[in-house]
Amino acid sequence: MLDYHSVDAATAWIDAAARCLDREDVALRTARGRVLAEAIRTTGPIPERDRAALDGFAVEANASLGASAYNPVRLPSVVVAAGDALPAGTDAVIPLELAEPDSEDCIEMVEAVAAGANVEHEGSVATVGAVLAPAATRLAPRHIGLLMRAGLHEVPVVGRPRVRILASEPPRGRAWDDSNTPMICAAVERDGGVVAECVAVEREQIAIRAALVEAEADIVLVIGGTGRGTDDHSAAALAEAGELSIHGVALSPGETTGLGCTGSGVPVLLLPGAPAACLWSYELFAGRAIRRLGGLGADLRYQMREMVTERKIVSSLGMTEICAIRFGTGDTFEPLPSFAEIGLMAAAGADGFVIVPQGSEGYPQGARIAVYLYDEC
Amino acid sequence: MLDYHSVDAATAWIDAAARCLDREDVALRTARGRVLAEAIRTTGPIPERDRAALDGFAVEANASLGASAYNPVRLPSVVVAAGDALPAGTDAVIPLELAEPDSEDCIEMVEAVAAGANVEHEGSVATVGAVLAPAATRLAPRHIGLLMRAGLHEVPVVGRPRVRILASEPPRGRAWDDSNTPMICAAVERDGGVVAECVAVEREQIAIRAALVEAEADIVLVIGGTGRGTDDHSAAALAEAGELSIHGVALSPGETTGLGCTGSGVPVLLLPGAPAACLWSYELFAGRAIRRLGGLGADLRYQMREMVTERKIVSSLGMTEICAIRFGTGDTFEPLPSFAEIGLMAAAGADGFVIVPQGSEGYPQGARIAVYLYDEC
Repeated sequence: MLDYHSVDAATAWIDAAARCLDREDVALRTARGRVLAEAIRTTGPIPERDRAALDGFAVEANASLGASAYNPVRLPSVVVAAGDALPAGTDAVIPLELAEPDSEDCIEMVEAVAAGANVEHEGSVATVGAVLAPAATRLAPRHIGLLMRAGLHEVPVVGRPRVRILASEPPRGRAWDDSNTPMICAAVERDGGVVAECVAVEREQIAIRAALVEAEADIVLVIGGTGRGTDDHSAAALAEAGELSIHGVALSPGETTGLGCTGSGVPVLLLPGAPAACLWSYELFAGRAIRRLGGLGADLRYQMREMVTERKIVSSLGMTEICAIRFGTGDTFEPLPSFAEIGLMAAAGADGFVIVPQGSEGYPQGARIAVYLYDEC
Repeated sequence: MLDYHSVDAATAWIDAAARCLDREDVALRTARGRVLAEAIRTTGPIPERDRAALDGFAVEANASLGASAYNPVRLPSVVVAAGDALPAGTDAVIPLELAEPDSEDCIEMVEAVAAGANVEHEGSVATVGAVLAPAATRLAPRHIGLLMRAGLHEVPVVGRPRVRILASEPPRGRAWDDSNTPMICAAVERDGGVVAECVAVEREQIAIRAALVEAEADIVLVIGGTGRGTDDHSAAALAEAGELSIHGVALSPGETTGLGCTGSGVPVLLLPGAPAACLWSYELFAGRAIRRLGGLGADLRYQMREMVTERKIVSSLGMTEICAIRFGTGDTFEPLPSFAEIGLMAAAGADGFVIVPQGSEGYPQGARIAVYLYDEC
């Protein structure tokens, strides 16, 4: 058996080992999903100068003083469109539909207008230096529109973590239909990483060690061979190639997770080969590292909601356990057979999951628990 | 002024015009984010046959009857790994650590074992025809893992909607820094569409009409020139090229939205050129159409939560209005200046938005309202 480290200890190790990558400048129009490396602020007031709030006629308000149906005041017709700067000498706008130029290109006013009427004043939307988007914003379409509108064409974003994936082949003589690598590649992309390389490695200590030494990446994931059986060599290979800091984590599924570094200091995560264990070891540890490297923040990228369990949830004291759930009526949910029990099948038909922490033996029926909601892709 | 159609009327038009595209088969490993065209079911039971639940020795339970420390029973050592099919003649598994083969390759049992101990029975995880992923699932990493594990390499998914974008240039003599097109392209991709073509079109009825007639796509978006000013030609061009079904929607911002079809029946959406109006016309109408075409379902892809407003929200009766919000403490939120008031700047620093429906004049302080949460990218 492995000595289990707590999930908290493994998490703390990740947070120390995986720090935000350097910034790079990219074209704003292609930056959806990228993470701002610094806050973007206005360089001038918005609007830059007083401007018309609607289509109409720009006038000098003072000149309209005393205007009435009995005493109309004639002013030159100065047509402006919404957004146009106010022409010199004007300080108010009359809506287009309230006046009509005559043959001498003048308009007739039958009531006075206040200075500033229908004018957007300089800086009224935003002052100089106002934050358009804070650092760590993951750019969505609305940000792209807003920042382009503010005149930006390039933005400083956090580099995308380059991930090297080493899939440890099964022992000789066993069929291999590798479902883990495509799953983990998809998760890396979801979390903003780039799969820089993805290779199958013979399940021998020397082969895995050699592949680890070569690693040119921001992080390396080794999939499979993480146990302590005679066919498991990933941990020993990492210990030889650099440092094995943690091996064995109190996470179910995911017990044989390992964490360490190559000789040149690149973080390495050992993900178990059993598919559900592979997924959860990724979600809690590898994904966390990739999200931190990419500036996304450490937390799981699932929305959370407090919901009530329709049935008792039983969990082993000393293990952090992942339990799939399905929505019930209202704010209730039904716990499903867990990932540890039925593997990835637990994901079929699940609406989300619960993480039962190490110090808990589970929850009674009717308990209100934080549920993570599946809705990512 | 335009006669406004209700948002509901425009929505109903979209739902009739935009139907789910045909299916296509794609490689599962590249299918993240794609939408299943049909449910995927198991073709056999899982497990396919009785198999070992852990590494150990496979035995015939009957043969161990009567075994005790005083009456050890010797059985041939049949090593199995977790997941291996049970060898013929065996029906239970002893954990590896509880026995050791002797020099004659036999193990000694000191207690009886029950038939089925540490065995995963055929079909115990899933029976034949069980649903692995329902139709309309947007494939996430866990689905890719599960379906590969079930032996699939291709999956039937809904086609990605091909979107043609026509950006109507501004009237001659006006500077153009098109912030709308990159914003809308990003939104199309977020919603699962493909920007098949994106062209700038001269702001003349004849040019827009010609571009509409050419359209080879599942949907066409025309950006700008949607009003009824003398420089606005998009609606007239669509009426001439096919049919203008709706022009003018009671959405603020987004009043000049138009909906119709080309002569060959391709849906066309006219999105206003003012950036915030463009965004919201897209979100409520164009995005809805693209999501429906791609099988994603019509609803806005934002999580919702009931929250309490810290201040009164005022809205015009007869208009559906979009109001940006920022989280307060606990489950409260603060309404921000609306998109109609300050344009896309309303998105800066917002945590989400509220849609105040047409029939409402707003909400009093302390009202509990459904809030859409920004977290997409």
